[in-house]
Amino acid sequence: MVGVAPAPELPTAVDQTVDAAVHLHVEDVLARYLAERRAELPDLARTFAQAVDAMSDFALRGGKRLRPTFAWWGWRAAGGEPDGPRAEAVLHAISALELIQTCALVHDDLMDASELRRGRPTVHVRFTEAHRAGGWLGEPERFGAAAAILLGDLALAWADDMFESAPLDPVMRDAARRPWQAMRAEMFAGQYLDVLAQAEGDESEERALGVARLKTAAYTVERPLHMGVALAGAAPDTVEAVKTFGTDIGVAFQLRDDLLGMFGDTEVTGKPAGDDLREGKRTLLMAVGLERAVLAGRRADAELMRGALGDPDLAPQTLTRVRELLAELGAVDELERRIAALTSSALAALDAAGLADPGVTRLRDLAIAATRRDR
Amino acid sequence: MVGVAPAPELPTAVDQTVDAAVHLHVEDVLARYLAERRAELPDLARTFAQAVDAMSDFALRGGKRLRPTFAWWGWRAAGGEPDGPRAEAVLHAISALELIQTCALVHDDLMDASELRRGRPTVHVRFTEAHRAGGWLGEPERFGAAAAILLGDLALAWADDMFESAPLDPVMRDAARRPWQAMRAEMFAGQYLDVLAQAEGDESEERALGVARLKTAAYTVERPLHMGVALAGAAPDTVEAVKTFGTDIGVAFQLRDDLLGMFGDTEVTGKPAGDDLREGKRTLLMAVGLERAVLAGRRADAELMRGALGDPDLAPQTLTRVRELLAELGAVDELERRIAALTSSALAALDAAGLADPGVTRLRDLAIAATRRDR
Repeated sequence: MVGVAPAPELPTAVDQTVDAAVHLHVEDVLARYLAERRAELPDLARTFAQAVDAMSDFALRGGKRLRPTFAWWGWRAAGGEPDGPRAEAVLHAISALELIQTCALVHDDLMDASELRRGRPTVHVRFTEAHRAGGWLGEPERFGAAAAILLGDLALAWADDMFESAPLDPVMRDAARRPWQAMRAEMFAGQYLDVLAQAEGDESEERALGVARLKTAAYTVERPLHMGVALAGAAPDTVEAVKTFGTDIGVAFQLRDDLLGMFGDTEVTGKPAGDDLREGKRTLLMAVGLERAVLAGRRADAELMRGALGDPDLAPQTLTRVRELLAELGAVDELERRIAALTSSALAALDAAGLADPGVTRLRDLAIAATRRDR
Repeated sequence: MVGVAPAPELPTAVDQTVDAAVHLHVEDVLARYLAERRAELPDLARTFAQAVDAMSDFALRGGKRLRPTFAWWGWRAAGGEPDGPRAEAVLHAISALELIQTCALVHDDLMDASELRRGRPTVHVRFTEAHRAGGWLGEPERFGAAAAILLGDLALAWADDMFESAPLDPVMRDAARRPWQAMRAEMFAGQYLDVLAQAEGDESEERALGVARLKTAAYTVERPLHMGVALAGAAPDTVEAVKTFGTDIGVAFQLRDDLLGMFGDTEVTGKPAGDDLREGKRTLLMAVGLERAVLAGRRADAELMRGALGDPDLAPQTLTRVRELLAELGAVDELERRIAALTSSALAALDAAGLADPGVTRLRDLAIAATRRDR
């Protein structure tokens, strides 16, 4: 760690190289961009600027910065030079991924009526409470929902503005714009399919895998990586290999998430065990469990699992029984097998992509970290 | 009207020049862009593509295409040639304004819990009904809200994609990107201030004018015009003059809307008379009326007006009484005076801008049409 003193005008001190701490640099660039956009708001919009602070606060507080991290290492592995003249523009462009994530989370929390995120009240809850505390007119929940919708919209608009304002070479920008545009549509598609699968009570593996592919794999790993290598001017073959790596690791990441959501330690995952089940999420884990129960003619067990899915008052003993069944029926082993297979095919694609170190090693490490049991 | 047969591959027949029918050309370009993006969605997202059709249908059905129309005539007045090589790219870029409007309306209808828009069920209501008809799991309203949030988000993301994909000269694109970026923040700011004023019960003229300036003037007239003249490479002086014209006409447009919302004929306005009052909208009309009642010591009248604001079960005789009071107190005359003054200052700014015909005549006509009593 090289001890370079931070420039005094920076809102966040960064005394490490980007390679050593991608997430800190992303937060720094993001904080500066948000401050700049806030300063540009017309005087008339003073009270809106205060509301925007709630969104910025949310964007800047916490989060693993996974998407820009995959993008950065994709860029590095495809030949990007961290001390070269383009590094700053690339960092600016990929940091915009975090504002898409801000929109996704603010709107998702509203859609799921979640009260907490990262241990603090969600955005719609903050504005609902402000309304209630002020004794204002109308329904507090409706005001909270309106504020969350508008602030999520603003984050999405600013994500585009931030991406487009990066001083990139035009050829590189055009190359990166393709995954950038595809990614947003895929993310909204994945969220919609997730909500629809819950509503329809869809038990198929196909649907669960479709959601994992769009909502997690494409949005979290494949497209950020695609952006990174495109920004380095990678050849089509490399792009394809990296996309295969990203898709496989992304799906494995989601399957690990399914297992952690069911069996994980709340201390580690940060959310109550069984939350996916309570919310009625149609995970591959449950799809495999249900299919096996049905094929084995274990009707009562299948019914118990179906009844638990989406039960907001899920009893602890029911959760325990669902866990036992998933293990007994071999669904847990099946998921572990798939995670191992996907991780191995992903690493093979990565090896074949012809990328350079240290990027390729970091991508391998990220892949392994994202899919291991004690994540 | 020249009877040229439409090319068979076009989804919309356009047999008039852009100058003769801006709105038809905007709809044509929009329909093609939406079809293209739908075709690009991955196979996995088939059911999402069906949901996207509801959004596209909404975007393509009805609406006056006011924003692209102002942008087009701004471009023409600043020297844009309708038969020149740049016209198609300009039309593509300004048609993207309609997708921002799609996001704004889909989200606004959800925030206001509006059931109808242009005589048909709103997007969240369509999905709520689909859920109910399918007998799906969970609350129909929550599903409808999630679909409307995600489809509005998609429209906003596609608006940016559409603007950025127009094959513009890079210098022109950079010039147009400034109003494009400012406009979206101003629009969300205006919507937030509107919701906040309703919640806080803010009676000040200042707040009502602030909302009119951001939500209507900046978003509907000033920034679309700014985009248009910027795309023609207008000098800073021209940009400033056009912005003054746009701001003044935009505010006048909103004040006319206030009057039509209170006194207008449902047949003409397309919405029930008194809807603004029922929803508790803090219009300048009500701010002036309340201020005058208070200054005149007419406490009971002020209380009657306050009680009517935001009363969902507003009695017809109360609406009639509020109308009488607004006339008696001189609030109606005051608004007419302001509309006339704003229209005249706007037209003076337009005359001083040094723009060319036919654009300048069309902008004058649009200004007069937007602010007259029988709009």
